[in-house]
Amino acid sequence: MKVNGTHYRPIWQAADGSAVEIIDQTRLPHEFAVARLASMADAAHAIRAMLVRGAPLIGATAAWGLWLAMREDPSDSGLASAYETLMATRPTAVNLRWALDAGRARLATVAPGERVAAAEAFARRVCDEDAELNHAIGRHGLAIIEAIAATKPPGETVNVLTHCNAGWLATVDWGTATSPIYQAHDAGIPIHVWVDETRPRNQGAFLTAWELGNHGVDHTVIVDNAGGHLMQRGRVDLCIVGTDRVSANGDVANKIGTYLKALAAHDNGVPFYVALPSPTIDWTLHDGFAIPIEERSPDEVTRIPGRLDDGTTGAVTITPPGSRAANPAFDVTPARLVTGLITERGVAPATPEGLLGLFPERVAAGE
Amino acid sequence: MKVNGTHYRPIWQAADGSAVEIIDQTRLPHEFAVARLASMADAAHAIRAMLVRGAPLIGATAAWGLWLAMREDPSDSGLASAYETLMATRPTAVNLRWALDAGRARLATVAPGERVAAAEAFARRVCDEDAELNHAIGRHGLAIIEAIAATKPPGETVNVLTHCNAGWLATVDWGTATSPIYQAHDAGIPIHVWVDETRPRNQGAFLTAWELGNHGVDHTVIVDNAGGHLMQRGRVDLCIVGTDRVSANGDVANKIGTYLKALAAHDNGVPFYVALPSPTIDWTLHDGFAIPIEERSPDEVTRIPGRLDDGTTGAVTITPPGSRAANPAFDVTPARLVTGLITERGVAPATPEGLLGLFPERVAAGE
Repeated sequence: MKVNGTHYRPIWQAADGSAVEIIDQTRLPHEFAVARLASMADAAHAIRAMLVRGAPLIGATAAWGLWLAMREDPSDSGLASAYETLMATRPTAVNLRWALDAGRARLATVAPGERVAAAEAFARRVCDEDAELNHAIGRHGLAIIEAIAATKPPGETVNVLTHCNAGWLATVDWGTATSPIYQAHDAGIPIHVWVDETRPRNQGAFLTAWELGNHGVDHTVIVDNAGGHLMQRGRVDLCIVGTDRVSANGDVANKIGTYLKALAAHDNGVPFYVALPSPTIDWTLHDGFAIPIEERSPDEVTRIPGRLDDGTTGAVTITPPGSRAANPAFDVTPARLVTGLITERGVAPATPEGLLGLFPERVAAGE
Repeated sequence: MKVNGTHYRPIWQAADGSAVEIIDQTRLPHEFAVARLASMADAAHAIRAMLVRGAPLIGATAAWGLWLAMREDPSDSGLASAYETLMATRPTAVNLRWALDAGRARLATVAPGERVAAAEAFARRVCDEDAELNHAIGRHGLAIIEAIAATKPPGETVNVLTHCNAGWLATVDWGTATSPIYQAHDAGIPIHVWVDETRPRNQGAFLTAWELGNHGVDHTVIVDNAGGHLMQRGRVDLCIVGTDRVSANGDVANKIGTYLKALAAHDNGVPFYVALPSPTIDWTLHDGFAIPIEERSPDEVTRIPGRLDDGTTGAVTITPPGSRAANPAFDVTPARLVTGLITERGVAPATPEGLLGLFPERVAAGE
């Protein structure tokens, strides 16, 4: 999407083909900085230090990391070593494993002398496929927004609430939850987004607000506490969020606080949609409450980074020294609170039948 | 309640009778500082600059402000001028108006020469009555906690979630929502409190955590997003919050985000109680959604104060420069989500009949 009027992805091959470039997301929203990844070690660092984040983007960075590695050492041992190094950067990231497994399998089939070209083609394909997937999600979500706009007087704004950052910065392009929003905006539908700040890591205030602002989408940052009130007062037409994992029965694991917004949406008759590429569906899991919830560092709760008054970045601690904090990173929204799952194939009800209806090959697979 | 083992109220007359002293709440939780109010102007400043906050404490500070004023000028014009100055500090504060109206009426009945003594007696009475009111609320709330403790194996902790600061720092002693918690703790019931940080102003992380820690009550600070997840997992036995205004039908206006916790409590069968002194009930209002919701400065959302790494205090801005923010300060929790209203007379169902049952004189008043 656009930054200062220019179309960007969060990762791309440098124009002269000498390196990979990324937007350094640790500097956002305070500074727009491009980082150059000239080696496999640079790519591993970018993932580990979270210069890139978001499951699809981590996978894409790993794929480009294999290309950088093959330029350094295209031998079998070079491939094995690159796989190990990149895999160790974020061991629990599903897309990371997927990209590295697929990349290694692809490269193992070609001679070392052809691996640089094969790795480049593989990385391009990973990126383009992610962009296409998200574009398709956006098309189906756009139809929902168009239908809501059609119930309003012409020109009246559609108000969307979103939580966390399921935006283009987390993917290769479009984002998931944001893809319908960008497509509605680009289609000329007047749209406004309520952006939950998303404590503790503030991905909404830091990243979603930055994305939307740069693409020219009207938005307002709110504290996570405010969404229920706005829904009670009719100021939200629909919610769209992303997800980290959806169980086969339609339960949705997503950033902590998603469940509270789904409850408020349900209580006020506001549609609550979850946007996801189908690889996010865990067909082996029939109860979302079996998904383990990561407990992250309490420092994320007690210490908030941001821009100091002198323009540099820093952090403030908000709790008294003796108080401890807890930091569950995700919650599970039960399927009964979800209006629909927006996938690349269309919108499914959040039920086992709904999901299998869109992915009938899974019935054949016995799932 | 206790600070470093010593019992404190947030306001008191200096030991030598020469002034009023308060805990400077703008410095919490980073520093425990006592401010001296030697003049009516000092008292007005303390209210205006929010060195004191919380409706009951504002009323108490205004009452002591009248005493300081009478020492300076006990004439009728001095009384009128003090009333005007103090009233202008926080024009919408109901307790401020109540304390000043009652104080002026009392002082008008005595000769100027007796006004210093009468004002001192009035201020003491305002403070002691508030402490007694909150102690009575706590006794009734304690019975609820005892009943929950009785359903658990002996010695197992009762987990309470609270939002914002309805603690002793907001009142003269005990607090409202915290009064049952302190009384349970003092009675030896093992109790643990989940403290919502309460964005945007972080009264939970700043004040409730500080209060509880200093009194020795076990507690954990969480982001506002986390409470729903904890309730889903059975880690909250009950919620107790305060309120700014309760309508005669039992709807509860309180700090933004209260409604989301009430929804989660209802969805998970967790009792949700609201603690309040009866003057908080607006008997003239039969629909809480008619309560106007204050929209506060967006700066409270975008800029977070705290302790910098060098130990001084400062603030960080979390949003990109071009993004605006909205800041509704309160929301309304519908009565249907409230398990009970804990008042100084006992626990009432959140219904017109429930409230009138505890306050039958209101039936006679035709309300």
